[in-house]
Amino acid sequence: MNKQELIANIQKKRSFLCVGLDTEITKIPAHLHSCDDPIFEFNKQIIDATAPYTVAYKPNIAFYECYGIRGWQSLEKTVRYIVANYPDIFIIADAKRGDIGNTSKMYAQAFFENLPFHSVTVAPYMGEDSVTPFLSYSNKWVILLALTSNKGAFDFQCLESNNTPLYKQVITTSQKWGSSENMMYVVGATKADMLQDIRSVAPNHFLLVPGVGAQGGSLSDVAQYGMNTECGLLVNSSRAIIFADSTEKFAQVAARKAQEMQIEMSDLLARFSTLL
Amino acid sequence: MNKQELIANIQKKRSFLCVGLDTEITKIPAHLHSCDDPIFEFNKQIIDATAPYTVAYKPNIAFYECYGIRGWQSLEKTVRYIVANYPDIFIIADAKRGDIGNTSKMYAQAFFENLPFHSVTVAPYMGEDSVTPFLSYSNKWVILLALTSNKGAFDFQCLESNNTPLYKQVITTSQKWGSSENMMYVVGATKADMLQDIRSVAPNHFLLVPGVGAQGGSLSDVAQYGMNTECGLLVNSSRAIIFADSTEKFAQVAARKAQEMQIEMSDLLARFSTLL
Repeated sequence: MNKQELIANIQKKRSFLCVGLDTEITKIPAHLHSCDDPIFEFNKQIIDATAPYTVAYKPNIAFYECYGIRGWQSLEKTVRYIVANYPDIFIIADAKRGDIGNTSKMYAQAFFENLPFHSVTVAPYMGEDSVTPFLSYSNKWVILLALTSNKGAFDFQCLESNNTPLYKQVITTSQKWGSSENMMYVVGATKADMLQDIRSVAPNHFLLVPGVGAQGGSLSDVAQYGMNTECGLLVNSSRAIIFADSTEKFAQVAARKAQEMQIEMSDLLARFSTLL
Repeated sequence: MNKQELIANIQKKRSFLCVGLDTEITKIPAHLHSCDDPIFEFNKQIIDATAPYTVAYKPNIAFYECYGIRGWQSLEKTVRYIVANYPDIFIIADAKRGDIGNTSKMYAQAFFENLPFHSVTVAPYMGEDSVTPFLSYSNKWVILLALTSNKGAFDFQCLESNNTPLYKQVITTSQKWGSSENMMYVVGATKADMLQDIRSVAPNHFLLVPGVGAQGGSLSDVAQYGMNTECGLLVNSSRAIIFADSTEKFAQVAARKAQEMQIEMSDLLARFSTLL
């Protein structure tokens, strides 16, 4: 999927919502446990219910990998289900991979050839040759970790050299490797006030923003400080949508939660972008 | 596996060799391609041939993940084969994972509960809560990326703040999270001259050293600058051992290559450690 297609979908749905599929078996409603593949069944119902309000899905790979082969089967079925039924929705492998060149090439193959993801989150610690193998696919994206939403973000990401914090060096240096047409950055919603500064070095890039909802970030702050004229944001919400209810009505409740965010997003798009 | 057991095995085998199982299907000898699971069959023969000279195996997860479910099956069989047949050999999941706390917990479950790995390589970029979930298992290890062996290592790992390069801050800061009993560091052999400086801040930790062989690092430099009295090193070699030959004799040749390294290592242990 290219940038224009993503923006067109944001405009059409009046939404920049990404739903995080962090599907924990222990949090799935009881009535689904008798299914053949409870994780896929849960995802399928969540996807069908939330797709009208959503421009991206983000399976968190750890939540599948922890169940071994069974988990990878659920993941594969989930991604193929989205591609088959909602081909305009952007799919992110939240994998945080990154290794030396010949190894990153294998990870790129895992997510872009063996599975039909549009993008992968990548950790920048190992530098250029750990990132570029993911950039050699057309219409596929790297989403590079810059400033994450967790407490540990402050341990290294904010260390300053030449008066510039590491996360900002990651953003400026990586712009030599890819462009705003194939690279996005992860910037946590819990650090929304730093978005303005980030926009000064990456005005045109899409930012993937986790941490709204369960982690405490504010959607309106994110839009105020981070939105550009063509939106430039994908805001992720996981638990606050997919686990909002644990009864047989979980999908309906998830749809309502996603719609609430979409309505707020529509308003923010009208205020801060030129899309509406 | 605890530190004492690992050191005892190094002493017994007079070796600190880690064999990297970066098993690429295209590099496997032709006669194995008719097997049910060529990757597992290749690994099994490599393991049986090299185990006498080896204290650790390191499957590189990307090389399995890129084949999806089939790849994970080969990985699982490989790890269980090592545990069942060579229970004194240390097994490293070279996965370079790392995510926010509740996600890293799932990765730890993937490698320490669902699979019987002894250790996982972890990327430090996301800080404390991305690392500590892996440290909550007894006799399991985190191997934290510090200074990697690739060219891209210089992009961020050597950026200095307060006159200290990032990789050194990673080493000092992370010592608040774990000890030399459950944490090691990745330090590339291609930067052997920096090992002395690293030993000044981590005298007792084991270092996992990739980059000897195909990537050009020198084993004797690594031992000279990096070995401590109880060895404190695991030196990895992948391609130079496992793909040394592509005929039906591949396993024999791999054994000979591993033995050559073991003989050199025995000599280095006698010179620089107090184990022999």
